[in-house]
Amino acid sequence: MSDEPIMDVAHLGHVELLTPRPDESLRFFIDVLGMTESGRRGDSVYLRGWDDYERYSLKLTASRTSGLGDAAFRARSPQALERRALALKAAGAGVGWAEDELGHGPAFPFRDPDGHLLELYCETEWYQAPPELKPSLRNQAQRFPARGANVRRHCLAVDVRANREFFERALGFRFTEQIVLDSGIEAGMWLTCTNKSYDFAYTREAHGVKGRFHHITYALDSREDILRAADIFLEAGVPIETGPHKHAVQQTFFLYVYEPGGNRVEVANAGARLVLAPDWKPIVWSETERKKGQAWGLKTIESFHTQGTAPLPGQES
Amino acid sequence: MSDEPIMDVAHLGHVELLTPRPDESLRFFIDVLGMTESGRRGDSVYLRGWDDYERYSLKLTASRTSGLGDAAFRARSPQALERRALALKAAGAGVGWAEDELGHGPAFPFRDPDGHLLELYCETEWYQAPPELKPSLRNQAQRFPARGANVRRHCLAVDVRANREFFERALGFRFTEQIVLDSGIEAGMWLTCTNKSYDFAYTREAHGVKGRFHHITYALDSREDILRAADIFLEAGVPIETGPHKHAVQQTFFLYVYEPGGNRVEVANAGARLVLAPDWKPIVWSETERKKGQAWGLKTIESFHTQGTAPLPGQES
Amino acid sequence: MSDEPIMDVAHLGHVELLTPRPDESLRFFIDVLGMTESGRRGDSVYLRGWDDYERYSLKLTASRTSGLGDAAFRARSPQALERRALALKAAGAGVGWAEDELGHGPAFPFRDPDGHLLELYCETEWYQAPPELKPSLRNQAQRFPARGANVRRHCLAVDVRANREFFERALGFRFTEQIVLDSGIEAGMWLTCTNKSYDFAYTREAHGVKGRFHHITYALDSREDILRAADIFLEAGVPIETGPHKHAVQQTFFLYVYEPGGNRVEVANAGARLVLAPDWKPIVWSETERKKGQAWGLKTIESFHTQGTAPLPGQES
Amino acid sequence: MSDEPIMDVAHLGHVELLTPRPDESLRFFIDVLGMTESGRRGDSVYLRGWDDYERYSLKLTASRTSGLGDAAFRARSPQALERRALALKAAGAGVGWAEDELGHGPAFPFRDPDGHLLELYCETEWYQAPPELKPSLRNQAQRFPARGANVRRHCLAVDVRANREFFERALGFRFTEQIVLDSGIEAGMWLTCTNKSYDFAYTREAHGVKGRFHHITYALDSREDILRAADIFLEAGVPIETGPHKHAVQQTFFLYVYEPGGNRVEVANAGARLVLAPDWKPIVWSETERKKGQAWGLKTIESFHTQGTAPLPGQES
Repeated sequence: MSDEPIMDVAHLGHVELLTPRPDESLRFFIDVLGMTESGRRGDSVYLRGWDDYERYSLKLTASRTSGLGDAAFRARSPQALERRALALKAAGAGVGWAEDELGHGPAFPFRDPDGHLLELYCETEWYQAPPELKPSLRNQAQRFPARGANVRRHCLAVDVRANREFFERALGFRFTEQIVLDSGIEAGMWLTCTNKSYDFAYTREAHGVKGRFHHITYALDSREDILRAADIFLEAGVPIETGPHKHAVQQTFFLYVYEPGGNRVEVANAGARLVLAPDWKPIVWSETERKKGQAWGLKTIESFHTQGTAPLPGQES
Repeated sequence: MSDEPIMDVAHLGHVELLTPRPDESLRFFIDVLGMTESGRRGDSVYLRGWDDYERYSLKLTASRTSGLGDAAFRARSPQALERRALALKAAGAGVGWAEDELGHGPAFPFRDPDGHLLELYCETEWYQAPPELKPSLRNQAQRFPARGANVRRHCLAVDVRANREFFERALGFRFTEQIVLDSGIEAGMWLTCTNKSYDFAYTREAHGVKGRFHHITYALDSREDILRAADIFLEAGVPIETGPHKHAVQQTFFLYVYEPGGNRVEVANAGARLVLAPDWKPIVWSETERKKGQAWGLKTIESFHTQGTAPLPGQES
Repeated sequence: MSDEPIMDVAHLGHVELLTPRPDESLRFFIDVLGMTESGRRGDSVYLRGWDDYERYSLKLTASRTSGLGDAAFRARSPQALERRALALKAAGAGVGWAEDELGHGPAFPFRDPDGHLLELYCETEWYQAPPELKPSLRNQAQRFPARGANVRRHCLAVDVRANREFFERALGFRFTEQIVLDSGIEAGMWLTCTNKSYDFAYTREAHGVKGRFHHITYALDSREDILRAADIFLEAGVPIETGPHKHAVQQTFFLYVYEPGGNRVEVANAGARLVLAPDWKPIVWSETERKKGQAWGLKTIESFHTQGTAPLPGQES
Repeated sequence: MSDEPIMDVAHLGHVELLTPRPDESLRFFIDVLGMTESGRRGDSVYLRGWDDYERYSLKLTASRTSGLGDAAFRARSPQALERRALALKAAGAGVGWAEDELGHGPAFPFRDPDGHLLELYCETEWYQAPPELKPSLRNQAQRFPARGANVRRHCLAVDVRANREFFERALGFRFTEQIVLDSGIEAGMWLTCTNKSYDFAYTREAHGVKGRFHHITYALDSREDILRAADIFLEAGVPIETGPHKHAVQQTFFLYVYEPGGNRVEVANAGARLVLAPDWKPIVWSETERKKGQAWGLKTIESFHTQGTAPLPGQES
């Protein structure tokens, strides 16, 4: 049975984002991205997209600087959680069980080779909409206000290969696409544990600094929604970094902005593109191909390769 | 391990459709739906949507009447195929191995309680586009001509409950939504083995005839594409049965037409809606709720409950 | 010069709608349709779509019952206003000048053969957005919040032909499409004074009652916006009468709802369809053609022919 | 009557494009843009969008080099044509009557101050679709195959102001937006004779060469159609210059490509934006504002200011 796929991780659950401007960041996620507040504890506000089945998908925490707090994945069953915890301990990545988090049961935190803090959990609290947010159709978690949907996120990593191997071996993720430079160095990779073409991605950090954060992505339903979001960002004075345009890698239709805390946020649409093949053959992009820019020719903006959070010394705004 | 999910079936692979008007049906699938021919053998023509990774997703077979030939699912691994074949044999559903089918390895055919012919296979032929159909981006199976995408299908069934239990126990599918009448009879159910909210569905057959076929669905990328398809059907003289409108159940945006052979074909868009929860709680719709019609109030058309293929005696056109 | 076109009317300006539930109607137009309040006077609240260049396009007036107050058209120049006032007086339709209306200069009210109150004006107040509603781009009247755009409206009329001839002769409108029954009776017509395919329309009133109102239409930018509006109406508990679907006549993509005051409101998208031909040949639809239903086959709902405001005796809810 | 608007020009009719690669250009306009051939004469092929009411909107002529042949406008009536011909003669711009052109009656050719050849005509041939191109709905000129719609075009001009004044005085066009540099030089302007926000535009030519051509624009129905066109261009190997993105000026959603003959072609969507005000106040953009790039921040590509047809000496490919 050793060569059968590991199917223990169901999906990315929630991400903790750090912000030095918590009030403005909160207004961005609620007013501009259309998310709903679903809890508060300590310095953190918990937020959800309208169709998230769990209580929240984003934990926004006031902090001295910006960046990624942690990212949590839901295991497929209690047994699956146990198996992955054992494997992570064996790999020396485990941090110890965490018992008291809002909205879900015991979690097993661990670190990837780049030092990012991640965790696995299984039991979860299904969201119960209060009366004023009850939807009209019973197969929907919450009344439609808005825009946000399934969350995914990116990390800047110094050694992409080590992180890829860690996710494949310890967590059973598959990688669907990657960029390999002429030097043989892996410059980017996209990992999935679902039928989405990626749930999580790493791209190379230009400065050799570990544990930095590139961006978090929220999904919208259509490309038209992304264009409408661009108008909304324009009117709200939100700085647009690049897009809307279509990525060559993954073919998502993207738009990148900066939230007031300094973290990069993407809204994207993946359309009907799903990876159903259980034996998907990863797409490998060469350095030459990537220099052609995005799908319709837009050049990749320079800041995309250099900008991340927490800010580097001297980059703080 | 007994209470852990069975993850052996990866996705619906291909469907065989029977048609008494093979030439006109073929023109419909190629010219109107935008599919590509990818093989011929005997009385059958094999067809594919532009983003199918396998060689084909539809087998169109000349026949005395219309209806469903069979439906084939891909197993996740050779071991998964073995396990499911054993379970199906034990359930008395197996028909025996089939060795010589186009485009994939050995298959295990079996019958559901309603008598539909289904099969499982694992090895498959990945589609290689000829030069004139090579796409511009390497993460795409074929040049974009067109429209078709992931295929799903429906069956008319006499006893929905028996079929649901069969798919759950023998194949490890989960059901995501169902309709239960006031009498307690299950009138419809939607089953999945992926993160799509359904891959396969049964609705109650009004005449007590087993093994009939309700419709096959092809996915388009956006709701705008469905509206455009409606214009294309109108101009091509294709009979529109109902839609475009939004289903309450599953919330897909739908459009139903009849292909020249008499089989019902749906084009639909599921947007960004995915079922990621490994422990999804099935949505149960009551008879009263379903009488309200579709999401925005369109009444369900009468023929939707009565019309299927093969035609009943006296219904042949 | 007698056979040259009259070009004196520039466009439909604003419409007064009467409502017995002014607070709920106001909430509908602001919260659900996304309009902005731009004035109050007496029992009336003035409202605007985000891209209206004039101060308002809707005057919502508290009243004992629902229905149309009046409809106002803007003349192309002061001379054009004088010419039309003379022609309307000569036709016995004039009511006398009105001097003191909010947001525009002197107006010339008049009645169409069916008794609806209409008016012409020329001087107008261009909308000045307050700071919080200033748009980011200078070629836009107001910050994008929302949805509403160019307003048009329909009237139920007893004698369609008399009204058509009145609009052609006294106002210089052209009719672009009409429905003529087998009996020769004109059952509907669509009139324009711009490049839009209609600005104003009449359909036959089934009960022989004059001066009733059928619906007001607000334009959205895309068909996707209409679909999104359907979801918003569903979630807001707004009764949907029919749609979304595509009209055969005019090919607009439509959705009809009832606002809380009882008046029918349409949101529609006309896409890129414009009538540029100065000598457009009106399209004539026969009774048989109209019985086929809308463009993609939806049957015209019965209430569409019978329901109007003010309610008939016995129809009040 | 002197201060009343001149309403004599109804709309842009057709444009003649010159191409040194006539076969490849023809395939581009038919296969990629989805236009229909509707006539041939001498070295010219006549082409139409599916909803053009006249026989053609594009005349494609084999030539030694690329560029603009001429552009023809339809007068609103025979009297209007006479009036404009007199005014143009008085301005010394007339070239003399042309009697024998395909698809329309006598035309009055003239030159703008920059030397471009233009013409006015009134009588026209309404398109009659052959049986295989008959549409399903009678208010449409031709079966929907495709994409093209209302045509507009741009010209590179040395002295924008002189051309603006010519169009205002001799033809009765209004300008809706313009760019004025800090030096006071007018660098661009957009002119209309309909409710579209522009029918015709001039931008400054960087090299001081008169009579050059910037691009022709075809309209699509939605922004989603523009995105789909980008995919179609990508797959067809058509060079994309810039876009899709949203213009700040005019707010159109644009995409620029080069057809095989070297002429720039734009596909764009103007949404529901119409200029209805008869006294529209032109929007003036400053040099500083234009340096901010397009609506969502895309920088205007350098070639946009320098590239035109016919090619300059040394620019021929």
